[in-house]
Amino acid sequence: MRLYHFSHAASILGWDRNTMMPAKGNEARAAAEAELQALMHRVRTDPQLAEGLRRAESESLSDTERANLREMRRDWRDANALPESLVQAKSLAGAKCEHAWRSQRAANDWRGFLENFREVVRLSREEAKLLADDSGLSRYDALMDRYEPGVRAADIDRIFGDVKQWLPQLITRVQAKQRDEPLIAPVGPFPVVKQRAMNLAVMKRLGFDFDAGRLDESAHPFSGGVPEDVRLTTRYREDDFVQSLMGTIHETGHARFEQNLPREWLGQPVGHARSYGIHESQSLSFEMQLARSREFTGLLAPMLNEHFGSQPAFDADNLHRLLTRVKRGFIRVNADEVTYPAHIILRYEIERALIEGEIEPDDIPALWDEKMKTLLGLDTRGNYKDGCLQDVHWSDGSFGYFPSYTLGAMYAAQWFAAMRSTSPDLDARIAAGDFTPAFQWLKANVWSQASRWDTPELVCRASGEALNPAHFRAHLETRYL
Amino acid sequence: MRLYHFSHAASILGWDRNTMMPAKGNEARAAAEAELQALMHRVRTDPQLAEGLRRAESESLSDTERANLREMRRDWRDANALPESLVQAKSLAGAKCEHAWRSQRAANDWRGFLENFREVVRLSREEAKLLADDSGLSRYDALMDRYEPGVRAADIDRIFGDVKQWLPQLITRVQAKQRDEPLIAPVGPFPVVKQRAMNLAVMKRLGFDFDAGRLDESAHPFSGGVPEDVRLTTRYREDDFVQSLMGTIHETGHARFEQNLPREWLGQPVGHARSYGIHESQSLSFEMQLARSREFTGLLAPMLNEHFGSQPAFDADNLHRLLTRVKRGFIRVNADEVTYPAHIILRYEIERALIEGEIEPDDIPALWDEKMKTLLGLDTRGNYKDGCLQDVHWSDGSFGYFPSYTLGAMYAAQWFAAMRSTSPDLDARIAAGDFTPAFQWLKANVWSQASRWDTPELVCRASGEALNPAHFRAHLETRYL
Repeated sequence: MRLYHFSHAASILGWDRNTMMPAKGNEARAAAEAELQALMHRVRTDPQLAEGLRRAESESLSDTERANLREMRRDWRDANALPESLVQAKSLAGAKCEHAWRSQRAANDWRGFLENFREVVRLSREEAKLLADDSGLSRYDALMDRYEPGVRAADIDRIFGDVKQWLPQLITRVQAKQRDEPLIAPVGPFPVVKQRAMNLAVMKRLGFDFDAGRLDESAHPFSGGVPEDVRLTTRYREDDFVQSLMGTIHETGHARFEQNLPREWLGQPVGHARSYGIHESQSLSFEMQLARSREFTGLLAPMLNEHFGSQPAFDADNLHRLLTRVKRGFIRVNADEVTYPAHIILRYEIERALIEGEIEPDDIPALWDEKMKTLLGLDTRGNYKDGCLQDVHWSDGSFGYFPSYTLGAMYAAQWFAAMRSTSPDLDARIAAGDFTPAFQWLKANVWSQASRWDTPELVCRASGEALNPAHFRAHLETRYL
Repeated sequence: MRLYHFSHAASILGWDRNTMMPAKGNEARAAAEAELQALMHRVRTDPQLAEGLRRAESESLSDTERANLREMRRDWRDANALPESLVQAKSLAGAKCEHAWRSQRAANDWRGFLENFREVVRLSREEAKLLADDSGLSRYDALMDRYEPGVRAADIDRIFGDVKQWLPQLITRVQAKQRDEPLIAPVGPFPVVKQRAMNLAVMKRLGFDFDAGRLDESAHPFSGGVPEDVRLTTRYREDDFVQSLMGTIHETGHARFEQNLPREWLGQPVGHARSYGIHESQSLSFEMQLARSREFTGLLAPMLNEHFGSQPAFDADNLHRLLTRVKRGFIRVNADEVTYPAHIILRYEIERALIEGEIEPDDIPALWDEKMKTLLGLDTRGNYKDGCLQDVHWSDGSFGYFPSYTLGAMYAAQWFAAMRSTSPDLDARIAAGDFTPAFQWLKANVWSQASRWDTPELVCRASGEALNPAHFRAHLETRYL
């Protein structure tokens, strides 16, 4: 419970830093947050804890106790498998590389980036080796296990291998179909106060509990706070309401997971939201499965008319075309749901080979270009800033994270397929503004399960089968062809 | 430094609770804040600290080191002089009594209050006795020393004894003078967004650094945050702009003290703002000495016209009469600066006698009534809710705090008297919108001194003499007669 309380404090301080804190507060805040992190690290590495875990593992326990113990052991490994010196060295090298990356990206300076990045890779490999020795996993698996417990590179190879077979051709077919569809662009400006009112109205409709959370602004949108008090953020551009609206719906999916974690487990390890991929499956269930469906668009249209005044672009069919437009682009974070997996597959293949020592940092641009050509038909030669320099993840050594994005999209498609098999009228009810079957299913099968199972078991129990990319493919083909 | 970082976290969490947190976050927040407080208590009572202090006290130290050591010793005493069981018992009894007081006050239920309050008094006396035994001070002095280090009841008796000689007659004379003065009341409503804009403009004019702090709303206005990031709050009523404007100016005084504490001392005990009374001398320098002066009112008038549209009440002379109106009232927090000391003297005399065991809780209403008659000519018999039940302080056992309010008002008058002796054109420059002499004096003599001296020495060094109520009297007579 002490860790739970301290991480509550850390989370609110982080939220405040990003939403409320004036510039000159930064240094003192960084010191205070570092002190809290150091404190939490001391708690997690307390030798008495190791002994307690060993004792508990030989006792007879209930299912929940066993799940708690498994999560505590995972957390203990995470905190204790690495020597303090390596953790510090990686943190420093990552911070240095990330800081320089912020200007190097804009300057298209791959050579400059490499100078710092080589050290980040070297330390990340060392980290992966130690974690692998400790856990018996392969090096990349050992890193990925932090984000997707139980999911292995062999699974990802099988799943992404399948996607690579059909995705490029699907993109071509979708673009051919969309080429001649009429599309009316919305005409701004859309004042921030009106966008905020619209976002709040949609959040309310999607069941966000405003007595247990709030919506604010930050430069980079995130979902923070604690399960009892979820802090969402978005950012506004007056010429475009879609980004903040869809971003808010996305974060609302994360938020409802947190707000519906079992209250009786809060403060226990089993009470945490399951992995990054499962969390993303909630935000994408809300944003992609629900909000970009034709049924939901029919609900959005009158709300847009009400908040911004009516205009031709708010016609429901036009709006739906707007929200499902597919474009081949350089930038992952701007990608639609059809091309997004291509960005992830490319990154996964590169970072896995990098961690396993099959390639070196210098090899990345050529590989990036080759894969972008194959997957999306785009030429990125010499364009580092829109290529391998575009993401923050590698600069601070967060290897193993990227697959979670596309796993999340696939889990979400699988959840909605499972829902439709038990509620054949699911889409009709969504069109009528009734999300009960969807939310009840998510609550029963995901939210209420928290960290009770590792990720693959959660998927099986929820949907009756292991992760199956056929559901994702079927979803894309149904919506886009 | 660890304590400094943890108290940073605690302060921001407390601010967030009062300004941002939705209702359902309360339980988890209370637990997280309690965990942090317990942690800080463990740090403050670490046996190694006691040994370190003893060692340091026998070493040769610089002035600053010696001041640091003195403050650390004071803090150590504060944390260690009382047995854990007493601290907990008092905290519980205080929380219970305060919680019940919230409804008992409205219900005028003195009998009900007494049932809880007797225990609070019993435990506060025990606390005072232990602190007195430890420090060699009298019991009440031992409590007051927490708020005004170095100030003793003997000083207060001398000062308040002087005020009692002239205050009742002064009030009578001021009211006689004001009786026939014309007064035009401002006509609302004053929309919250406009009040907020007005308040921000005044804060800016008063030198508040918005890169190192912010202004928000809370049910009970306070000045929180940390020196690097000061968080002010106010509350708005659309029918009255004066309360939030003057409240904001008051808090801005607190804020500038914090924002101008010496940066090189932050994190050290000597870097803390000096006592509650000295802090209050800053808020009252801003609100009473500066903002309610005729000179400053001349600056406020055009700003009010600009923000709210012009109206007859915003004539500078009328506005000044409005901001200096004297009324005999029951309620301390609503009192003007002339009658305010009467409320404090009454409370001081009662609480001192209570802690020293000269009276019992049952005696309070009769004493209250007698003193209100003598000082303000008001009859409070049977009216507990506007009498001895009106303040929160006693309900949770915060005895020794009340004198700080009036000490603050007196220090502020003494600061401005000192300023005028070095800058004879002070008031002319204020009238011209130039606050430089005032702020430079406060920065050199108060803000930059932090906790370098105990309170009486700070007063002497700043103004060249010990606290002298003649300055406060002269201020009131000059402004009101």
